[in-house]
Amino acid sequence: MALAVNTVWVVLAGALVFFMEGGFALLEAGLVQTKNALSIVMKVMADVTVGSIVYALLGFGLMFGLSRAGLFGTTGYFLGPLRTGPLTVSEPVFWFFEMAFAVAAVSIVSGAVSERMRFPAYLLYVVVGILAYSVSGHWVWGPGGWLAGLGMRDFAGSAVVHAFGGFSALAAAAVLGARLGRFEPGTEFLPSNLPLAFTGTFILWFGWFGFNAGSTLSAFAPDIGQIVANTMLSAAAAGLVAVLWSRWRFDAYDPTMAINGVLAGLVAITAGCAYVPVWAGGLIGVAAGVLVVESTGWLEAWGIDDPVGAFPVHGANGLLGTVAVGLFATQGGLFMGDGPHLLGVQLLGAAAVAVWGFGVTYVAFAVLRALGILRVSADEERVGLDWALHGRHAYHHPGPAAAERARPASAGHTLV
Amino acid sequence: MALAVNTVWVVLAGALVFFMEGGFALLEAGLVQTKNALSIVMKVMADVTVGSIVYALLGFGLMFGLSRAGLFGTTGYFLGPLRTGPLTVSEPVFWFFEMAFAVAAVSIVSGAVSERMRFPAYLLYVVVGILAYSVSGHWVWGPGGWLAGLGMRDFAGSAVVHAFGGFSALAAAAVLGARLGRFEPGTEFLPSNLPLAFTGTFILWFGWFGFNAGSTLSAFAPDIGQIVANTMLSAAAAGLVAVLWSRWRFDAYDPTMAINGVLAGLVAITAGCAYVPVWAGGLIGVAAGVLVVESTGWLEAWGIDDPVGAFPVHGANGLLGTVAVGLFATQGGLFMGDGPHLLGVQLLGAAAVAVWGFGVTYVAFAVLRALGILRVSADEERVGLDWALHGRHAYHHPGPAAAERARPASAGHTLV
Amino acid sequence: MALAVNTVWVVLAGALVFFMEGGFALLEAGLVQTKNALSIVMKVMADVTVGSIVYALLGFGLMFGLSRAGLFGTTGYFLGPLRTGPLTVSEPVFWFFEMAFAVAAVSIVSGAVSERMRFPAYLLYVVVGILAYSVSGHWVWGPGGWLAGLGMRDFAGSAVVHAFGGFSALAAAAVLGARLGRFEPGTEFLPSNLPLAFTGTFILWFGWFGFNAGSTLSAFAPDIGQIVANTMLSAAAAGLVAVLWSRWRFDAYDPTMAINGVLAGLVAITAGCAYVPVWAGGLIGVAAGVLVVESTGWLEAWGIDDPVGAFPVHGANGLLGTVAVGLFATQGGLFMGDGPHLLGVQLLGAAAVAVWGFGVTYVAFAVLRALGILRVSADEERVGLDWALHGRHAYHHPGPAAAERARPASAGHTLV
Repeated sequence: MALAVNTVWVVLAGALVFFMEGGFALLEAGLVQTKNALSIVMKVMADVTVGSIVYALLGFGLMFGLSRAGLFGTTGYFLGPLRTGPLTVSEPVFWFFEMAFAVAAVSIVSGAVSERMRFPAYLLYVVVGILAYSVSGHWVWGPGGWLAGLGMRDFAGSAVVHAFGGFSALAAAAVLGARLGRFEPGTEFLPSNLPLAFTGTFILWFGWFGFNAGSTLSAFAPDIGQIVANTMLSAAAAGLVAVLWSRWRFDAYDPTMAINGVLAGLVAITAGCAYVPVWAGGLIGVAAGVLVVESTGWLEAWGIDDPVGAFPVHGANGLLGTVAVGLFATQGGLFMGDGPHLLGVQLLGAAAVAVWGFGVTYVAFAVLRALGILRVSADEERVGLDWALHGRHAYHHPGPAAAERARPASAGHTLV
Repeated sequence: MALAVNTVWVVLAGALVFFMEGGFALLEAGLVQTKNALSIVMKVMADVTVGSIVYALLGFGLMFGLSRAGLFGTTGYFLGPLRTGPLTVSEPVFWFFEMAFAVAAVSIVSGAVSERMRFPAYLLYVVVGILAYSVSGHWVWGPGGWLAGLGMRDFAGSAVVHAFGGFSALAAAAVLGARLGRFEPGTEFLPSNLPLAFTGTFILWFGWFGFNAGSTLSAFAPDIGQIVANTMLSAAAAGLVAVLWSRWRFDAYDPTMAINGVLAGLVAITAGCAYVPVWAGGLIGVAAGVLVVESTGWLEAWGIDDPVGAFPVHGANGLLGTVAVGLFATQGGLFMGDGPHLLGVQLLGAAAVAVWGFGVTYVAFAVLRALGILRVSADEERVGLDWALHGRHAYHHPGPAAAERARPASAGHTLV
Repeated sequence: MALAVNTVWVVLAGALVFFMEGGFALLEAGLVQTKNALSIVMKVMADVTVGSIVYALLGFGLMFGLSRAGLFGTTGYFLGPLRTGPLTVSEPVFWFFEMAFAVAAVSIVSGAVSERMRFPAYLLYVVVGILAYSVSGHWVWGPGGWLAGLGMRDFAGSAVVHAFGGFSALAAAAVLGARLGRFEPGTEFLPSNLPLAFTGTFILWFGWFGFNAGSTLSAFAPDIGQIVANTMLSAAAAGLVAVLWSRWRFDAYDPTMAINGVLAGLVAITAGCAYVPVWAGGLIGVAAGVLVVESTGWLEAWGIDDPVGAFPVHGANGLLGTVAVGLFATQGGLFMGDGPHLLGVQLLGAAAVAVWGFGVTYVAFAVLRALGILRVSADEERVGLDWALHGRHAYHHPGPAAAERARPASAGHTLV
């Protein structure tokens, strides 16, 4: 009976997390230029298709198999048995839930490389990204992982998923280089479809309730209410603060900051949603809302071109969320009177995961660049990746004026 | 064990209701003009962000706390304990579910004020709207509410959520005034993106199964089947009838009536989904389909500009649904042979909630108008709120023709 | 208690399957020309509204009522009692879940008839389609159905839903005839909005977890993990293979093949998701990815115009999936050493359902054609069905250039 209830819970939560890929696709398609809207969706689709297969073959075992010295797992490859002790659900259900997390982690990178990376190179990256994610995931969540052994606490993955993905995105964008003309005065890179980006944001927020609350892996966890309240209120506070902060800094209630603010609040509460009280969840959201606006500016200063803000949302706020557990956790938090030990562990763990993600991705992208298969040609970039790589345009809207001009005298509403 | 099952049920249903905000955003972005598509999404985002915070701080307590004379709740502020007796789920889970309802109620107003209201004024309205909703919600659903004491039955909120929101929307639109040129001959206000509006409609319908069935707050309720069947068939009947009715009245199978018909059927069955037999649910849907088309015309006659039809969908059909319980409820319905008592109570309750919503909103908007911060300038309205308030356009589609013209001779599909 | 858990499972899975209609609508709106994007959404809406009502009145009884000679059901009309023995959930909950399947089956046809079929004729078709679906559904899933009696195994409907729908679509497209100019050189039919089509695809994939895993009708089924892993990996393999195959065949990583590849993988695993091991699920996906690209070419050769690929996705891969059970089922599969018996039954069953779907639809469409109410006029087809039948255009985007030109000197970001 308990198994049945947990199965319902984890399968439906896993489906919600899977659906976040649809959210990533729309968010990124909406934020890039129209001529590259399809190519970014194709890359998110590659995250899902290649990523889920690699995670079935190797990633799941590397992450959750019996540990070799706390560094990586050694059982459970090819969906074989993990042999690590009883779970709250069957192993394939657990795989399904965790697969959606692995795919989300590499999807973060797709946004940072948009508008200029070749498609086959991206397929190769996904293989590397899933394997690297699974290794550092083992450190924190695996049975016997070395960071878990130190006492690191990352409930649903501010570090494991988001700091990993966000720092991978930073390395990828750094090696790829900026889009042509990105740092020249007078050029504009206009988002193709902001209502589509908001659609993606609402889907991501919806899926995040599966992401955070489902990470209990059990319907019997007493803290599910705390988790959903923290998830809701951190995102709300961050979304509101980012909009108001953007108004103060840039003279407009900026829609892209509404989007990235909400996402930053979700990222930042992901580590602590089960550990911090709700008032602290709200404070974390406020900090996330400021941080996402400010760190978007840092990229500009560093000369790194991250078209959708993958680093500000996932990298900077993944760190924030992981560290915030060391400050606000009801048990162990510095501000709760429990001393700096947990804070130190969280800092070490967040740094380890971020450096690992950055380093592996930097090397992988440098190899792809050295092979000459990383970046499209300048001509292809100008015409757009949709047409150059995929032979299609995203939109074919001749426009109502044209349609009305073409209206024949005989046309009317059909009567039958 | 029962707690775990109920938690799964209510959390997932609550996530569905939350996702309805994505539906509202897309529906309204699709129905307004392109130059205001972003500004309406920003207002829905404000419903969520400001609304959830206000409902955590005060609304939840006002609605479900220990009652002061049946008028408002006095415990449970700041997510403190309600002290009102045992629930089927934990208090934070209950808060999450009810928060999504409160946010939905004020979101109804966002559509009616679209294309002409300032953003900061809307933020202030959301605070007032959430508090007013929580008070009238207490009357019907709170422990000891005065309408509950009279025997009013509103299962999932045709009155509490929809009549409140729809009459608030009517008052808001009346005080704001019509869009420039709206009642002048020859001007057209063309919906920016009807496929997007249909996307929103399907999301709303999907979420409504959480809205209605989740309102059992218990997976053990024997009437869940009746609720989902009623919800499905009322919406289907209303959507079909509204399209056919629009064909008969206006000579076209009108897509906006397909949208508003479905939504009207959902609104109208919300009060009675657990109380009326399925054949009556279908009849209620038929009536809703006619009513939504006809009441759209009434607005025109009254000279009130409600750009997305918030009043016809939520106001008129919220009343219809509340009153229909007095006619068709298996226990107590007039047409079921149980006399007019319940019908009288439903009429009184629907009127009380509608008048309260209308009145509070009218006063709030009149104050904002008197302060001179309610409405954008005529210049801003002409250029569009997206650019004037948010510094962005919703869409940047240079169009395939432009992209094809720019295609260099060397471009082709990349081979590797 | 078990009833409560199953109710949560089946209601939420049913809501997911219902949401697939939103996916169909967006997928098809995105793949057809802009001037017909609304008309196809209206037809999907008709699938839902007319289809759910007909399935309540007659379809459910025909499919799951007490059997007359294994051919059709005789109880349960008008949502009356089925009298067929105990279910894992209440009858209205079971109706809700199965209703969403019936609606999905006829929705497959909407894509194949897009851009040229009248609206009232489509309403009539939906009635016929739902009834025909319910009869052949009875053969396989009904109590005492003749194909069930032979031992046919179709877990979630590769034959019952998809082969039925796909072959119905083939017949419909054959009788309707091609769009004007479709097989003339130099004409192009450009997809209106591919990001919207991808949105639909992600919604369909999300809903499919409800479709396949929910078909256990019980949260206690031990194979839920196997089902979700098979569903995920078949779709992933098919999506990846279809893209790579399209690159090899057509020189571009084709986005429409990413879409139809994923859907083909989902269709093909639907029959066997609970019966075949996960490695076989992956292989079935690989085959589906090749088949969907190749069978798209067959349509061209046959001179049949199926604008969105309903037959390649649902027809060809519905057959593939049904037959694959005869090859790979752990119990009974030819390749598992259990001989050809099951394979023969699956071939017979798939053929029977496909021929039935094709035949009934062919006759229904031939009658509509003979009555002169099937197809719009050539003038209406040229101007587009959105304007001709529904009096609306899908999109009204004047474009940012126009908006910027209109920007008055006084406009700026509003300060309060």
